[in-house]
Amino acid sequence: MQLILPLIMMEIPGKEALEAAQYKIAPYIHRTPVMHCKTLDKLSEARLFFKCENMQKIGAFKARGATNALLSLPGDGLKKGVATHSSGNHAQAVAWAASLKGIPAYIVMPRTAPDIKKKAVRGYGAKIITCEPTQTAREATLKQVVEDTGAQFIHPYDDYRIIAGQATAAMELIEDHPDLDVIFTPVGGGGLLSGTILAAKYFGRNLKVYAGEPRGADDAHRSLQAGKILPSINPDTIADGLLTSLGERTFEIIKQGVEAIVTVSDGEIIHAMRLIWERMKIIVEPSGAVPLAAVLQNTHLLKGKKVGIILSGGNVDLNTFFEGLGEKTN
Amino acid sequence: MQLILPLIMMEIPGKEALEAAQYKIAPYIHRTPVMHCKTLDKLSEARLFFKCENMQKIGAFKARGATNALLSLPGDGLKKGVATHSSGNHAQAVAWAASLKGIPAYIVMPRTAPDIKKKAVRGYGAKIITCEPTQTAREATLKQVVEDTGAQFIHPYDDYRIIAGQATAAMELIEDHPDLDVIFTPVGGGGLLSGTILAAKYFGRNLKVYAGEPRGADDAHRSLQAGKILPSINPDTIADGLLTSLGERTFEIIKQGVEAIVTVSDGEIIHAMRLIWERMKIIVEPSGAVPLAAVLQNTHLLKGKKVGIILSGGNVDLNTFFEGLGEKTN
Repeated sequence: MQLILPLIMMEIPGKEALEAAQYKIAPYIHRTPVMHCKTLDKLSEARLFFKCENMQKIGAFKARGATNALLSLPGDGLKKGVATHSSGNHAQAVAWAASLKGIPAYIVMPRTAPDIKKKAVRGYGAKIITCEPTQTAREATLKQVVEDTGAQFIHPYDDYRIIAGQATAAMELIEDHPDLDVIFTPVGGGGLLSGTILAAKYFGRNLKVYAGEPRGADDAHRSLQAGKILPSINPDTIADGLLTSLGERTFEIIKQGVEAIVTVSDGEIIHAMRLIWERMKIIVEPSGAVPLAAVLQNTHLLKGKKVGIILSGGNVDLNTFFEGLGEKTN
Repeated sequence: MQLILPLIMMEIPGKEALEAAQYKIAPYIHRTPVMHCKTLDKLSEARLFFKCENMQKIGAFKARGATNALLSLPGDGLKKGVATHSSGNHAQAVAWAASLKGIPAYIVMPRTAPDIKKKAVRGYGAKIITCEPTQTAREATLKQVVEDTGAQFIHPYDDYRIIAGQATAAMELIEDHPDLDVIFTPVGGGGLLSGTILAAKYFGRNLKVYAGEPRGADDAHRSLQAGKILPSINPDTIADGLLTSLGERTFEIIKQGVEAIVTVSDGEIIHAMRLIWERMKIIVEPSGAVPLAAVLQNTHLLKGKKVGIILSGGNVDLNTFFEGLGEKTN
């Protein structure tokens, strides 16, 4: 296995690689519920099936890819640990997955990252290495960490093991609802979207994949139109999980398999997020509400269809809200 | 049926009355999911089973009792409609249940009730009659409405049809998990608690029922100790669904069947609410977090036990939170 897997993962994962990923990570992750909401069905004039990755381990689908990447490492790599740079859900996912296997995790985070996120990463026993808040500093610091420790770098999305792991969310959704017509995901770096495209191709029945993308970080939309990767420069959106730009591997899959990338405004994202909170009584982060925003913008195309929506995560800073409540009672 | 049902409902509902309620309301309400959370299991050292009535129709268990009460009315009562006074979830529940049957609903609300609540009630097609924000004014206005319209008064809790309806939440929970050791509910007027006591008695296996009550509205706790109803005077708690005092019918059942009523501070309620939001990614209102607060205060008694928790509702005013988000993007 140790000799074969890295070879498999040097090309776009096939059906078997996705099945292997699902089998490997199943003992560690949640099989998240699929929820419905009659009010949102009415509003969209479609039938919506929400895959609740906000209820996944660490509160986001990122736990899937990180676990698969980590379990795909050869034994030596496991011993020396894993490393990444991220201030978001991927940082927590890698830290958590490493803690499962009892190996070291080194997370490079910008010194400006919120304390609450550093605390979560530290809570899983990972070591945080602080750097200046620039892409250059992040990458240089990570390189140094990898040289010093021999840890394996786990890229947040541009890695076939990650893509195969993220594919398992759509695989479960398709197992539960084999007759879906369409799936919507958000797109940032493209790990979830490209995994979903592969899952739809291998396991769906003429299942089409769309993505929603914030207008303020619309590199995937522009890259698709241009036929080449055009990274976001100074992306600006409330959907803080979708600031990254596509990678080579994710773009390759996305340009072959996505039906369309729909851009949505921050206003549309907040509106969709509020609908989910108020009507479904579940918490999604702004990035997780992007697919519903895209659906609501395109109800004319989806009338009567069975639409899967991947609610990608639910990690929202609730400090202000609860401090507000607490003040009333002190 | 029309002759028999009111007679049945003049005494404490028996096993058959609860089964009838469950059968009657099933087509209208949600069979809500039961959720688990490993983090909260660890924290409590017990195994917790959360019955998600925050995901019930109108966002609270009150839909159950209102539907059962309404469907138990003889034909004439149905035609002339139903009436109640409430500014909370019961108002919405009665308005919603009446809209299902296409009959008029008259809801007496204090003029100080938030616009958002009036809007929800009006959204179900109910007629709102505004009154001064005192108990006397509410009751006088309701009496007048009932005289003028011939509508049937649906009491929020002190009514055996309501109690039998609220019992169905615990019945479903027991069906899903027959080996529960304990169930915790919140207690306000006592409809949910007394219904749960009956469900546990008829359908549980040596299943004990506890309630959590806000310290600032602890009439049930005091009434139980005194052996007679001692209403709350100027109740003050963040759990705005639990301000009411016990009724004769609910007290009768509660004093016979509750194991204990645990009082919790507003701080404990907010702490439990935040745990549910952050760890389970679902939205509960302060009243809905009261049972978990009571559990966390008594983990020494519950070690290793299977504990059912009824998350009674999820109607929280999210205006401030979302206005905060919106401002960032305007």
